[in-house]
Amino acid sequence: METRRIAEILKQAQPDETVTIGGWVRTKRELKGFAFMEVNDGSSMANLQVVLDPQVPSYDSLLQQINTGASVVVTGTLVPSPGKGQRIELKATSVTLYGEADPETYPLQKKRHSFEFLRTIAHLRGRTNTLGAVMRVRNACANAIHRFFQERGFLWVHTPIITANDCEGAGELFTVTNLDLKKLPRNEQQGIDFSQDFFGKRAYLTVSGQLEAEIMALAFQNVYTFGPTFRAENSNTSRHLAEFWMVEPEMAFCDLDGDQDLAEAFLKYIFKSVLDSCLEDMEFFNQRIDNTVLETAENIINNEFGRITYTEAIELLEKADRKFEYPVEWGIDLQSEHERYLAEELFKKPLIVTNYPKDIKAFYMRLNDDNKTVAAMDVLAPKIGEIIGGSQREERLNVLEERIKQMGMLPEDLWWYLDLRRFGTVPHAGFGLGFERVVQFMTGMGNIRDVIPFPRTPLSADF
Amino acid sequence: METRRIAEILKQAQPDETVTIGGWVRTKRELKGFAFMEVNDGSSMANLQVVLDPQVPSYDSLLQQINTGASVVVTGTLVPSPGKGQRIELKATSVTLYGEADPETYPLQKKRHSFEFLRTIAHLRGRTNTLGAVMRVRNACANAIHRFFQERGFLWVHTPIITANDCEGAGELFTVTNLDLKKLPRNEQQGIDFSQDFFGKRAYLTVSGQLEAEIMALAFQNVYTFGPTFRAENSNTSRHLAEFWMVEPEMAFCDLDGDQDLAEAFLKYIFKSVLDSCLEDMEFFNQRIDNTVLETAENIINNEFGRITYTEAIELLEKADRKFEYPVEWGIDLQSEHERYLAEELFKKPLIVTNYPKDIKAFYMRLNDDNKTVAAMDVLAPKIGEIIGGSQREERLNVLEERIKQMGMLPEDLWWYLDLRRFGTVPHAGFGLGFERVVQFMTGMGNIRDVIPFPRTPLSADF
Repeated sequence: METRRIAEILKQAQPDETVTIGGWVRTKRELKGFAFMEVNDGSSMANLQVVLDPQVPSYDSLLQQINTGASVVVTGTLVPSPGKGQRIELKATSVTLYGEADPETYPLQKKRHSFEFLRTIAHLRGRTNTLGAVMRVRNACANAIHRFFQERGFLWVHTPIITANDCEGAGELFTVTNLDLKKLPRNEQQGIDFSQDFFGKRAYLTVSGQLEAEIMALAFQNVYTFGPTFRAENSNTSRHLAEFWMVEPEMAFCDLDGDQDLAEAFLKYIFKSVLDSCLEDMEFFNQRIDNTVLETAENIINNEFGRITYTEAIELLEKADRKFEYPVEWGIDLQSEHERYLAEELFKKPLIVTNYPKDIKAFYMRLNDDNKTVAAMDVLAPKIGEIIGGSQREERLNVLEERIKQMGMLPEDLWWYLDLRRFGTVPHAGFGLGFERVVQFMTGMGNIRDVIPFPRTPLSADF
Repeated sequence: METRRIAEILKQAQPDETVTIGGWVRTKRELKGFAFMEVNDGSSMANLQVVLDPQVPSYDSLLQQINTGASVVVTGTLVPSPGKGQRIELKATSVTLYGEADPETYPLQKKRHSFEFLRTIAHLRGRTNTLGAVMRVRNACANAIHRFFQERGFLWVHTPIITANDCEGAGELFTVTNLDLKKLPRNEQQGIDFSQDFFGKRAYLTVSGQLEAEIMALAFQNVYTFGPTFRAENSNTSRHLAEFWMVEPEMAFCDLDGDQDLAEAFLKYIFKSVLDSCLEDMEFFNQRIDNTVLETAENIINNEFGRITYTEAIELLEKADRKFEYPVEWGIDLQSEHERYLAEELFKKPLIVTNYPKDIKAFYMRLNDDNKTVAAMDVLAPKIGEIIGGSQREERLNVLEERIKQMGMLPEDLWWYLDLRRFGTVPHAGFGLGFERVVQFMTGMGNIRDVIPFPRTPLSADF
């Protein structure tokens, strides 16, 4: 059952070649004495047009049985296509029908379906133009991420999914347990006795692999994670998922400047790779979903990113002849309206803002000499807003211990993290990128649930 | 802080080049009027030897402060090395000490530590020779897996980690919950009311992405998963993890023959890639850990895999002049002793066994015409045993429904899986490979906990 992929045939094959393809029928048209089928195998947006004539064995019964959604293997000869929109078509010599699709019950008939409806049939929606294109772009972007880091000697490290650390974001953690929930063991304080659970203590799903990635960077210099992370956040928005994939590079002997350089090179690389390998899909998004996605991609690829400090950003926002919903003053967290004003209207290109007030940032970010700001960075892009957040990490043991205590956390819970500062500590830095957010921005898709095969959101874990 | 990697310097750099490196000191030796440091940056097993003389600023205080484990950045000139074992060494002109490591408390002194001990300091063990080599091989293998599939047009698909399907292996599932365990809501039957949980129903950690990978294959033809999977199995063995990474390709328009072809090409590719990119590390394993690992790798790379049916395998085992602990008869599941006899002693090369009795295999495997066996395959390798398990999937709706009922499962729980057979069904096949098992076999490491950065096992979820 050796088949060739339709994308490759459309691009490279020549008339007179004999080929066999396998795929699903998108449409069938019967004319007098012959018929057309558009066949798609998921390798490209474009279908291969198949021409059938009555010489094809079982012509009449095939035409009766084949409807939208049927699966076929077709062997035939490629011929130049007289129709417009395609270079070649396939003149069938034999057609095998593997699976019918009853037009009365097959949900994907040839009409537009809402994305909401398609989510209820996520097991079939990959066969539509839009979701097909999304999944190809998603793969191309994921592959570009690996190539970017591997070409630069970074190790892909698998940080744990199940973790006993609850120090980041306690309220938003899913609990992982093997206890019998109907008969939960109690301890003397009438709490749950997690010492009897599988891991001997309470365990959660990870919200970030960063702390463990730091461990690995302090042995291998340059590493990255690319794995699933979780938030038990009851957010029913178009930008939140309970389960999503995150990319987190971490570099030893690297400061905030190096971190910015890497983030800029990284974003340019993945946007360019996707344009190179999925141009047809990206043009589809630009035409049908959001007519700014190509412009946004080109903007990221072709411009040197702006770089300003948070303090400079606040000054620019204060000078803006614009009334913001959230008033601007030093110390606030930048809101989406501020970020978009800076990137879209003022700079008109991607912008890295650095050195945020320490009070709005995480405990592990390196304290600057001013004692007020930390070596954090956010990368803002036009039409997108924040796409990357990162920082140089605090490598000084005493400063880190102080920060941990100030945040009301217990240093002993992070004994191993502190050990990294105790033994051979080095300046190091990294950043995080939400993979689905990037795919959403690339494609212009309105809802993040449509850029992951099987979205997990409040009250929804189907398939 | 632009540094070059030591692996690249040792391989390519020439005498007289000025370079800057960053890394951790493995050993320091003081001689009369000069000193040596072996510096490692995780990019290779080999260290770069650094020569210091009193002209280096702060020579005396540096030598006092630098001990095993200290982190340094060194700038200097490469010179031919008079010592044996290295082509070049670095004559330092300046040394920056970033982090000391107190010899009284730093756990990784220059002596051999047991792997058990190293697991208790998993945040530092990547700085040892063995764990360093393991993590480089692990990365090389992971990268080879992506390249293999991407070169062949397979899409990397992210199947869900959190799932509401409990149809495979109910007893071994971790529960994922957001309920307050101290006040669990009850339903009318006094069970737990999971409708109030985050996902509105009981949710688990996935044990396999296969069923969802089938969804994607039936839209994109060729796909693969590479992600974490989970078993809440109380197995304290050297081959079990509660959290491990799995690779699961799935191909539409593919039968058991195509499945075998892919598995064989895949194994050859990843073993060859690792030998090509990590030969120094592999030689270390062969010398220090298991002196058969190179031979095993070559055996996999250079031999055409044997292919026999389960029935033939039983006949061969019955003919063997050998007493097995588990008696051989048609219908039994092959035990490790049987698999190793076949692959190691009889065939002396990798071997694919196909068409197992249906009663010992999963419900989704395609029923053969004999009505007794299914189109399953196991790939067995010398010294390793089963390394891959796969099958052609049952694509016939009525046969699949029958099998599901026979197994005591409810077809309505798998409505979407059955839909794939209802609408445009096609022959399809795939297999699964436990990533850590492969890394363990490649490296010869005795315990699987030493081939993943942060192992999760019963009573252990540290770091």
